[in-house]
Amino acid sequence: MKSFKFELLKECSQTGARLGKIHTPHGLIDTPVFMPVGTQATVKAVSPRDLKEIGASIILANTYHLYLRPGFDIVREAGGLHGFMGWNSPILTDSGGFQVFSLGSLRKVTDDGVVFKSHLDGSEHFISPEKAVEIQNALGADIIMPFDECVPYPCEYSQAASAADRTTQWAYRCRKAHNRHDQALFGIVQGGVFKDLRLKSAAELIDMDFSGYSIGGLSVGEPKEIMYEVLDYTVPLLPREKPRYLMGVGSAEAILEAVCRGVDMFDCVLPTREARHGTVMTTKGKLVLRNATYSRDYNPIDPECDCYACRNFTRAYIRHLIKANEILAAVLTSIHNLKFLIDLMNNVRKAIQEDRMLEYKRNFVASIKT
Amino acid sequence: MKSFKFELLKECSQTGARLGKIHTPHGLIDTPVFMPVGTQATVKAVSPRDLKEIGASIILANTYHLYLRPGFDIVREAGGLHGFMGWNSPILTDSGGFQVFSLGSLRKVTDDGVVFKSHLDGSEHFISPEKAVEIQNALGADIIMPFDECVPYPCEYSQAASAADRTTQWAYRCRKAHNRHDQALFGIVQGGVFKDLRLKSAAELIDMDFSGYSIGGLSVGEPKEIMYEVLDYTVPLLPREKPRYLMGVGSAEAILEAVCRGVDMFDCVLPTREARHGTVMTTKGKLVLRNATYSRDYNPIDPECDCYACRNFTRAYIRHLIKANEILAAVLTSIHNLKFLIDLMNNVRKAIQEDRMLEYKRNFVASIKT
Repeated sequence: MKSFKFELLKECSQTGARLGKIHTPHGLIDTPVFMPVGTQATVKAVSPRDLKEIGASIILANTYHLYLRPGFDIVREAGGLHGFMGWNSPILTDSGGFQVFSLGSLRKVTDDGVVFKSHLDGSEHFISPEKAVEIQNALGADIIMPFDECVPYPCEYSQAASAADRTTQWAYRCRKAHNRHDQALFGIVQGGVFKDLRLKSAAELIDMDFSGYSIGGLSVGEPKEIMYEVLDYTVPLLPREKPRYLMGVGSAEAILEAVCRGVDMFDCVLPTREARHGTVMTTKGKLVLRNATYSRDYNPIDPECDCYACRNFTRAYIRHLIKANEILAAVLTSIHNLKFLIDLMNNVRKAIQEDRMLEYKRNFVASIKT
Repeated sequence: MKSFKFELLKECSQTGARLGKIHTPHGLIDTPVFMPVGTQATVKAVSPRDLKEIGASIILANTYHLYLRPGFDIVREAGGLHGFMGWNSPILTDSGGFQVFSLGSLRKVTDDGVVFKSHLDGSEHFISPEKAVEIQNALGADIIMPFDECVPYPCEYSQAASAADRTTQWAYRCRKAHNRHDQALFGIVQGGVFKDLRLKSAAELIDMDFSGYSIGGLSVGEPKEIMYEVLDYTVPLLPREKPRYLMGVGSAEAILEAVCRGVDMFDCVLPTREARHGTVMTTKGKLVLRNATYSRDYNPIDPECDCYACRNFTRAYIRHLIKANEILAAVLTSIHNLKFLIDLMNNVRKAIQEDRMLEYKRNFVASIKT
């Protein structure tokens, strides 16, 4: 059985950026990597073959959503997520923790687990650390997450402290419950924006020797400077030889900042969500294609992009599709936005390889601000 | 300049079915053919490259919709519909007549033309035969239609008679106004379900020597037997050496019946509309994939189909996508339904070639009824 392995290939001479390679049972992932989000076992509006074409090497799916619908038994019977959704490359599932706290109507959190009501039909459910692992074992992703307690921003110290402690206890139970050695289990560092809590959380999780480390509880509404500050003191705590995953961050600028601080993996719904609302990312900044200014703009979304949308269609046409509520609008803009981030990561890896990451970041940020 | 030409390759020995080839400035069309409908310059949920892959040789777009949005000047500036929508194969546009009468809030019909209110914003517009041709000249399709007056079913004889007369007068004016010789203009036979009106309409239009003949005013709610009866006496009136197009018919059974009566071209929104509602066509009949019976059905939509959806995904997965309101559901079911009809036409052409069309039709109908 092919198993999980992280190779650290190079460390940037200018920044904390790292070049790496993750080996999984379903293939290799070059890091730093952006992972498109397929919440309900589909990256919204993008088919698996379009994902392949734009160079996605790993995608993410959501345990909470798939547990509620279609149910993890159906996914298991289909051969796990890979078989169910027709994606034979690596997959990562989150644990459902974040969604239980943000989407579910919360009933009760105890050390045992969480009782919550489904956002779909109000039905009552209980998820414990063991249950979260059981579901993810059935879903069969290559990389899975322990059940964690997420706190909002802002949040009192005492609440952040107790959530971080509980996350550590739950991580321990998840590690114990996890029985599929073809799936890599990460630890999730919590602790809000409090340095001592992050230190404690990281230290305790590192003791448990996970296959990789996620940084949770960021990108939940805090100012970017605070997120960067938390990364400044949290990332250096994490083992050099393990991959580091910053959960839920997907703006180009934040990705570059985090890469320079030593983060290897990213995911976010932003690129596909913005795409469905008609906003596209370009090397010169974002464009709101719905605006009348594009009605006779016969250029591609981004002349520097070679995605299917940019090779074949104009801003004027895509604007027309958006105004006419046509499905193809979401398809084309989603393909483009994901390709934009995947290209960004290709460029980032090249820049790290060539020891010019600092310069690359500076030029990129200057370009989108012109 | 490549121009329009119809080659009649073979006539069936068992039925009135014909095998043909239409030459257009944007390529060849083997007939009998089914034309996917791209109302707003996009076949809903299907990209041009997916259309190519499933073998679509010509698509249809709607003059009425494109006139209202984005406006025909924008399409013209983009290089016509082919450039605008990134489809470099043949395109047919209807004249907008049917939509003005069915979608617009009608203000006044005179011999001059029609004053109507837009279904989008209530704005008032006037379309005359000359205007319909001007718009279609700007859209630049390979095959265009004259502005016609459509009557509903049922309809009084006098109303059908006056609409057919007006359609003939308008056809004459459209022929005169038409000035792009790279675009083939068809005539549209009207006359409701009245034999003498159909005879008169056909005779008058044939006198004007159009490049092809459409049969309009059918598939508007009349029983199928009545439609077949109208075809029985109308199709034989049409010139043997010109293509014949039955407008708005897209059920497999009706297509087979019409092919056997000598019709060469078909279009219908049905396959893509049903797809978006989760109903798929198979060689064994239709499946309503939304139904719970498919929740654990790990077969493809149709084991005999080799479309992208059937090669890669199960009924259980597509049902999940439908229930979860995922865009990929519409993409996959639309690809499949169109491929089903395009495969049907491939089989029809093979059957005509091999002089077994009657048998093919009988077997097909028996199969979907089991």
